[in-house]
Amino acid sequence: MKAVVYRGARHLGIEERDPQPPGHGELRIAVAYTGICGTDLHIYHGDMDARVGAAAIIGHEMSGRIAAVGEGATGWSVGQAVTVMPTRACGRCAACRNGNSHICHAMNFLGIDSPGAMQSLWNVPAELVLPLPAGLPLDHAALVEPVAVAVHDVRRANVTADEQVVVVGGGPVGVLIAVVAQGRGARVLLVEPDAFRRALAGEIGIEAVDPGKTDVVALVDDRTAGAGADVAFEVSGSAAGVATAVDVLTTRGRLVLVAIHPQPREVNLHRFFWRELELLGARLYQRDDMAEAIRLVASGVIPARQLISRVEPVEAVAAAFDALAGGGVMKVLLDLREDLR
Amino acid sequence: MKAVVYRGARHLGIEERDPQPPGHGELRIAVAYTGICGTDLHIYHGDMDARVGAAAIIGHEMSGRIAAVGEGATGWSVGQAVTVMPTRACGRCAACRNGNSHICHAMNFLGIDSPGAMQSLWNVPAELVLPLPAGLPLDHAALVEPVAVAVHDVRRANVTADEQVVVVGGGPVGVLIAVVAQGRGARVLLVEPDAFRRALAGEIGIEAVDPGKTDVVALVDDRTAGAGADVAFEVSGSAAGVATAVDVLTTRGRLVLVAIHPQPREVNLHRFFWRELELLGARLYQRDDMAEAIRLVASGVIPARQLISRVEPVEAVAAAFDALAGGGVMKVLLDLREDLR
Ligand SMILES: [Zn+2]
Ligand SMILES: [Zn+2]
Ligand SMILES: [Zn+2]
Ligand SMILES: [Zn+2]
Repeated sequence: MKAVVYRGARHLGIEERDPQPPGHGELRIAVAYTGICGTDLHIYHGDMDARVGAAAIIGHEMSGRIAAVGEGATGWSVGQAVTVMPTRACGRCAACRNGNSHICHAMNFLGIDSPGAMQSLWNVPAELVLPLPAGLPLDHAALVEPVAVAVHDVRRANVTADEQVVVVGGGPVGVLIAVVAQGRGARVLLVEPDAFRRALAGEIGIEAVDPGKTDVVALVDDRTAGAGADVAFEVSGSAAGVATAVDVLTTRGRLVLVAIHPQPREVNLHRFFWRELELLGARLYQRDDMAEAIRLVASGVIPARQLISRVEPVEAVAAAFDALAGGGVMKVLLDLREDLR
Repeated sequence: MKAVVYRGARHLGIEERDPQPPGHGELRIAVAYTGICGTDLHIYHGDMDARVGAAAIIGHEMSGRIAAVGEGATGWSVGQAVTVMPTRACGRCAACRNGNSHICHAMNFLGIDSPGAMQSLWNVPAELVLPLPAGLPLDHAALVEPVAVAVHDVRRANVTADEQVVVVGGGPVGVLIAVVAQGRGARVLLVEPDAFRRALAGEIGIEAVDPGKTDVVALVDDRTAGAGADVAFEVSGSAAGVATAVDVLTTRGRLVLVAIHPQPREVNLHRFFWRELELLGARLYQRDDMAEAIRLVASGVIPARQLISRVEPVEAVAAAFDALAGGGVMKVLLDLREDLR
């Protein structure tokens, strides 16, 4: 079996390893495709060395088939198509006791804190595995995890039909939020400075504007008879994105904070007070979000074909990471299928 | 009849005027008591001259009895004890069309935008008048409007029994929020640097700590087995207050923003993301909040006697304003009863 191993900043090795048998309650998964996401890029760039150990196997967006069923894992069969929810809560921390185990304070994140999906055979606790419906192409299924993020974000705001939604930031997560919200019947406007991302959004039916050329607040006011947007998603991670997301909202509008802002941001709290706005932090997903994501990918609501810009063989992993970092792509997948190549 | 007239910064006059008959659909109210609140102080200090006209009659926290019933106002009787909801929505703006008329963009606020309650005979549209229950002392009833603010804020967070609540800021609104939340069965901690306010809070059964001497976050962690508070109310208007309110919260904790922050504030958005916190702006009240406030004052949940620091005759209005500005008092009322003095 092959494994992509993180050896330090900008250094990924490919190792041939002996497969280990699945442990008690585990499933061995023959990984088909593993997506590369922004977190993987951060690891690759050496930004997460304090958390990611030496010789770590990364990757957490995947699809595959069951290759072996460990003792004590019942109800599973070899050959079954599956994906994995890569978050394992501790069950003991304050978040877990509080009913918020999906944002556990001591989360074991597969592909960050323990071995991930960039290996051709992956042993995973069965309780983290979700079956995929028949007929769902496995490359498309590798999008389920990022779609679950978007589903979680959209559910956090309880977006309903005919609501005006503004998504600030058109990377993979922002585009998926736009697609999921539009799938619920909302009117969606995506705000994104990058021309490639705007063009891709347009191809999949999402209206996108350049904040450098369009007065977003004026446009939304115009679309809503002066009221403003019902929901804004801040997915840009920028100070300007926060300001736009606050300024577009109508009374009692909901701002879902999706992006990471490492430093404190100036926020117009007076507008929160005056319009009774709501700010909702959103992170990761719950099992229901994964299940909904599978349905959305399988039903074609998610235009998986257009969102997958490149599929690279695992041997080209470094080039795939560099392509993602360079822009001009949306999702990039690694092909880890062993017996088919 | 007597009226307190704002004549410019730090200048309030008392005028003897001829009473006007109530208009169509109006009630003439013989005002008993009118409270002075922070907004009135701002007007008095000249900070709201752009909005408050010359020779304005201010005041919006009051109680009284119906003195005359105008044509078209049905179901009311002379002598009935009443209070007034001093907000009149336009019915046409985006907020009103959106179902949020309580924070109408073109609100006519009685006592700011049109004549208020610091006059002994006040004509008010009947739809803004609420009857008071028998036996409720009229001085206590003058607290109904600020209590409605607190009820609205507590409802905004949907505070439930046994939740840990932190109220940052122990002025009249903060103390009332603490009382209303504790009345719902929550465990309440008030954070207030002023010794007088802390002592008063203690007298009415609210635990209060000095943020200059107590590590509030550590204390709340200690009280909640490390989890943090379920709800925080930011009522201080200070940057430090915002930070405390964010830092004390547990996963999915709710921060209700009650205070006015004229300038943008730095906010730890990463913590909102990481813990999926919620920020909820809250302003004014709805009619249900006024009705609930009447019940809470009448039932004694609100310790009105201890909260009313002084009752001054209308002739001493300037001294009453200066006393409020000087501190060492909680609520100050003006006595406007004409026939009883
Ligand atoms: Zn990811
Ligand atoms: Zn946990
Ligand atoms: Zn007031
Ligand atoms: Zn209005």
